[in-house]
This record gives sequence, C-alpha cells and structure tokens, in this order.
Amino acid sequence: MLTRSDVKRHRETAARMLGDLGIVLTGEERENIEIADLGLGDFQSEGLALVVYVNNDRYCAKELVLLPGQTCPQHRHPPVKGEPGKMETFRCRSGRVYLCVDGAPTERRRAVPPKNSAEHYTVFHEIELSPGEQYTVPSDTWHWFQAGPEGAVVSEFSSTSTDENDVFTDPRIRRATEIAGD
Amino acid sequence: MLTRSDVKRHRETAARMLGDLGIVLTGEERENIEIADLGLGDFQSEGLALVVYVNNDRYCAKELVLLPGQTCPQHRHPPVKGEPGKMETFRCRSGRVYLCVDGAPTERRRAVPPKNSAEHYTVFHEIELSPGEQYTVPSDTWHWFQAGPEGAVVSEFSSTSTDENDVFTDPRIRRATEIAGD
Repeated sequence: MLTRSDVKRHRETAARMLGDLGIVLTGEERENIEIADLGLGDFQSEGLALVVYVNNDRYCAKELVLLPGQTCPQHRHPPVKGEPGKMETFRCRSGRVYLCVDGAPTERRRAVPPKNSAEHYTVFHEIELSPGEQYTVPSDTWHWFQAGPEGAVVSEFSSTSTDENDVFTDPRIRRATEIAGD
Repeated sequence: MLTRSDVKRHRETAARMLGDLGIVLTGEERENIEIADLGLGDFQSEGLALVVYVNNDRYCAKELVLLPGQTCPQHRHPPVKGEPGKMETFRCRSGRVYLCVDGAPTERRRAVPPKNSAEHYTVFHEIELSPGEQYTVPSDTWHWFQAGPEGAVVSEFSSTSTDENDVFTDPRIRRATEIAGD
C-alpha cells in the first residue's frame, strides 16, 4: 500500500516529467495527480500517474505518466449501461511506449510482463509508439502497456472514462488506490 | 483566397509553434496541417491552423494554433441527427487566448472583434486562458476566441467534430478552405 510520502514523491516525479515536456499544470492539478498502484503495492513495476483534464458524459482527456519500465496492467473497458465500452487513443508525447493488444503475438516483442504478475498477461500483439505516434484501442479490447527505459508521457483521448467498470485480468487489482499513514 | 504558397508558409509557422512547445508531429501530420481561412481571405486576422489527432464517432482531439491577435470567428455547434451539438474543452498550452461566450459582457475585455467583421460578433463574456488553464464550452453555445500578442497553442478535447454543421454568425464564412493557384 502507498504511504502519503510515496504519493507525494511520485506526484513530484510525474509533474517534473510533464514540466520537462512543456506541459503546464495548475497548482490544483499538480496536487491532485492520481498515483494509481492498482492495489498491487509495487508502483514502480505496475501502476501509472494520471492527470485528468476533463471527463464528462461525452469525452475524456488525460495525460498518463509512466516511470522507466513501468507497466499499466492488462485490462479492457466493457460496455456500460447499454453504451459500448470506452474507446481510447494513446498518443506518445515523450519517451517510448510499448502497447500490447489482442491479436497475433509480435515475435520480437519489447514489452515484458512484470515478473510477479506474468500469468495475468495474455495479449501480445505489440505496437511501439514513439513521440508523435498514436494508436486507437477499440472498446472492450484487452490491452496493456509498458514504458521504455526513459519512461513515457502519453496523452489519452477517449470516450467517457468510468474507471470503476474496468476489467483487469489480474484478480488482485483494485482500481481505487488506498493510502496508508504517512 | 489562399494560394498554395500561403498554405505552405502558414503550415510551417504552425509546425514551428507546436515544435517550440515540444509537441511532436509525424511528417504526414505536418503536411496536412489544416489552414482555415474560412473563406474570408484574411487569414492573419480571422482563421486558425488545426492538427486533428483523432475524430471518430465518439470523441475528437485537436491542436489549434493561432497567430498573434488572430481570431477564430463566432460560431456554435448545433444538434446533429438527434445528438446534442459538439461540446468542447479548450486548454491553453502556450501564449494566451481570450475566449468569448454567450453571457454577461465582460467590462474590461481584451478580445476585440476584427475591424472588418465587427458586426458579426455579438457575445462578449470573456474567459482569459493562460497555459494550463481550460474552459468547456457547452454544446450549441455561441463562442469565438482570439490569441494574445504572442499567438497561442490550444488543445481541444471534444465530442465528435462535424465541421460542416457549424453555424457561423458571419454569413460570408465558408468552413472549407479554398486554395487558388500557387
């Protein structure tokens, strides 16, 4: 479980990575950067930092910040209340990101499932994204992504985000981060 | 009407302003930057450059680039095929942008309607956006915006964009740009 000082430290790192890229946040946004460890308690390996710019009943836009080699675990966005699941476009802004989706496994894959969770990774069609490149993940499609050795900043444009409906392959995952003590 | 060399020059300027901000475009995106003069033939005064990252049946994301003092003329996004009109969030990335929407007129307003089109500007509730600040314009709401003295780069996150349905106050406006000769 993350402590308050962990969260503070990871927020500072994310804000610095965004700042290095010329992305300006308000003070309030900086203080509210979401540090998601997904309940796995190993943030540097599996997790990500998020800045949600807007999320209304029609669209959503976020910045995702990944540490070097950090992985956002495999998940999909199922239909919600009769609407198709969330559809999302990942656009790499800095660093490099290896995105794996359902499909023919890529032979010389760069992304490697985290050691302690490897059995929960099952899709291996890899798309490599460098700055300026983007890929749209259809709704209800299994996907996961991992940053390259420099970490990555990724803009996400999507339909409405309802994180609580996300389905992860790893049954240990809790989307809402719990914070313990200082 | 814009000539091909005008378009080339304005594309280069927009690409440079985006590049200065660390925003990387692919070669194809750079070559396809939309230079919209809206049929008014006075791009430096009324118009804007656009990079459309994605526009599907659920959401849309663009970068808008405005020259110093350049104005995107007053318009609204009406309902289309039973769906509410386009809703959009403008997030200022660099420079400054003065956004005017329907509402109580702002007393010490910065935005000034372009001299040759002033009669087509009727809403004067101003929101000033500096880098990191954003504002969401509800659907079917009259709005226009003008860059400050340094120009501006603005990210637009929105529901689906159907430019051909936009309604402009100025009856001379044609949303599709026409290009003449070289």
